[in-house]
Amino acid sequence: MPAPPTTDPAPGSRIVISVDAMGGDRGPSAVVAGLVRSAAVNPDIAFILHGDRAVLEPLVRRRRVLAGRCDIRHAPGVVGMGEKPSHVLRHGRETSMWGAIDSIRAGEATVAVSCGNTGALMLLAMMRLRKLPGVNRPAIACLWPSRNPTGFNVMLDVGADVRADGADLVQFALMGASYARNGLGLERPRVGLLSNGTEEHKGRAELRAAQDLVARAAEAGGYDYVGFVEGSDIPSARVDVIVTDGFTGNIALKTGEGTAALISDFMREAFANSVLSRIAALLALTSLRRLRRRIDPRRVNGGVFLGLNGTVVKSHGGADATGISAAVKLAFQLARSGFQERLAARLAAAMAPARDAAHRAQGPAAGGAADGGGGGA
Amino acid sequence: MPAPPTTDPAPGSRIVISVDAMGGDRGPSAVVAGLVRSAAVNPDIAFILHGDRAVLEPLVRRRRVLAGRCDIRHAPGVVGMGEKPSHVLRHGRETSMWGAIDSIRAGEATVAVSCGNTGALMLLAMMRLRKLPGVNRPAIACLWPSRNPTGFNVMLDVGADVRADGADLVQFALMGASYARNGLGLERPRVGLLSNGTEEHKGRAELRAAQDLVARAAEAGGYDYVGFVEGSDIPSARVDVIVTDGFTGNIALKTGEGTAALISDFMREAFANSVLSRIAALLALTSLRRLRRRIDPRRVNGGVFLGLNGTVVKSHGGADATGISAAVKLAFQLARSGFQERLAARLAAAMAPARDAAHRAQGPAAGGAADGGGGGA
Repeated sequence: MPAPPTTDPAPGSRIVISVDAMGGDRGPSAVVAGLVRSAAVNPDIAFILHGDRAVLEPLVRRRRVLAGRCDIRHAPGVVGMGEKPSHVLRHGRETSMWGAIDSIRAGEATVAVSCGNTGALMLLAMMRLRKLPGVNRPAIACLWPSRNPTGFNVMLDVGADVRADGADLVQFALMGASYARNGLGLERPRVGLLSNGTEEHKGRAELRAAQDLVARAAEAGGYDYVGFVEGSDIPSARVDVIVTDGFTGNIALKTGEGTAALISDFMREAFANSVLSRIAALLALTSLRRLRRRIDPRRVNGGVFLGLNGTVVKSHGGADATGISAAVKLAFQLARSGFQERLAARLAAAMAPARDAAHRAQGPAAGGAADGGGGGA
Repeated sequence: MPAPPTTDPAPGSRIVISVDAMGGDRGPSAVVAGLVRSAAVNPDIAFILHGDRAVLEPLVRRRRVLAGRCDIRHAPGVVGMGEKPSHVLRHGRETSMWGAIDSIRAGEATVAVSCGNTGALMLLAMMRLRKLPGVNRPAIACLWPSRNPTGFNVMLDVGADVRADGADLVQFALMGASYARNGLGLERPRVGLLSNGTEEHKGRAELRAAQDLVARAAEAGGYDYVGFVEGSDIPSARVDVIVTDGFTGNIALKTGEGTAALISDFMREAFANSVLSRIAALLALTSLRRLRRRIDPRRVNGGVFLGLNGTVVKSHGGADATGISAAVKLAFQLARSGFQERLAARLAAAMAPARDAAHRAQGPAAGGAADGGGGGA
């Protein structure tokens, strides 16, 4: 059976990323600067850039590395950071965000990147791309600096929805494992459920019930289930994928970011404290830079929306060129690995037993077709 | 009206702390070493020490500073870290933990300290001390390093119970504000509800409903309600008391601890990387030590159980002498400020309107008595 076209593009063929140029706090010049960085190091990347043509054209024309690789699509509107998602859905057809998502819908690109309003982006993506068959709640996955060899763990959901029941958590486990396989190159990711203790009797009742479901789906999902993990395990080497609901995940993510920011402020103060410590800071510059690089939130910039017909990378609203470029790199990696098709196949295969049970009279055709994804999804 | 006796002890009179000597991972010698540190700097402190007399007596006798200030009570049993709380409640009467709590029950001490099994300690405290009138769920409050002038914020619940409804969150706000007043010296603490965004439409439905209740109790509780706060606000100067359920709070607490531990490992690696950076680390030793002190989890060691007839400080299981001494210091501070009586009075006053509504026909006697606590609770 031939692999789906995007899984293995012809060598030298370009991968097209759809980009919302207008959404971020720093405006389109930061976005274009980010694209320039990505284009400079990656000859296989091209962009469809959505936004105000009068603003974008001069920005793009100035950058030689973007010549012939950046298709500008005019969109007069911008989605504001404070706009209600439902309002954007009704009136946002002319915005750059809408355009960026519709490029996926039209099949012109497989992954879209936006720095805009998360709620609006999620709602637009859900309504325009639709959920994958069998997915109840899409999720946002993030990368978290960790002690694992890849340097990162995956956590989801970090904010798509404030709730998740047992069946949702199983889908998060499947999607997160697929993301870790394609984004981090882990063959058999270890999945844990975030709880308030590792003992089986900890956690809320619905979480204890979900344990069984997540453990049972491990074989079909190609992951190992390691049980409950705690907040302190999120950056640990015990686990690769941390599964939780979007309320808890969002609070954990922001608590981690807030703690890192606090320590880095304290560190700056500590080194500014005396002449001796200023000299020390100068001597330690390389070490401190290396440290900053390891915990720099811009390097892990990009929450990925999972569970839709198309992949959307949500970059931080305040992202600068470095942040945008990190989000674009992630988008490229996912597009090149054929992540979207693999994820869909894996979900279909894992859902098959449930479907088979429901339609026991019919043949196993659906499950069989999904198995075409093989062990790589 | 004379102040309650513990609020203002006669100068020179000692405050007695009840201590479970056996519960911690490092055994009774670490506990006694912690008491020695506290006793050395604080002439007004005395202890009732619960545990195996044959082990404790030689440890105490060796330390001159404890002479005449450490009353040993023999308890042959120890509560294991893995023991089920319900089992401890049925069979734990002879343990040091039980003894430590019963010293409060008997009025020999106002605050108890234990490094033991949190679940068992909470259940024993709840059953032996009973909840304060009107309290549905007790909570565990912790201190969090912050950008505020005091250096700390209060967060609760961090693990007493996995659930909390709107009425519980109001009680957490009242208790947390009272703790911040007495533990951090803040006259009018700012209280926030932990959510996945600061906008009013964020959060789960029950959390949005709780907003109103917490805001309405602000006057009686002597705090200002600042609205929703995010994970990144936990160490911020926007808020003094962060209110959440015990599941979310526990995950936030451990995520913060895990992030701090990860960064401190990365920092060590960064400074060990080259000869130059090792020299830099030597030069920066004072700065690094100051930094470590500011984020040292041992310095904020001590979750406080609130909402019971008596205060229990839960020290970290792995606490060393520094950690134990920090927990004892906190216990002393709370005992000396008359925190327990003030908290009870504040809760009674805040609950009075609800009670009055229920018993409108009767006089305002209950509410009036509680007002005796004045503005200081």
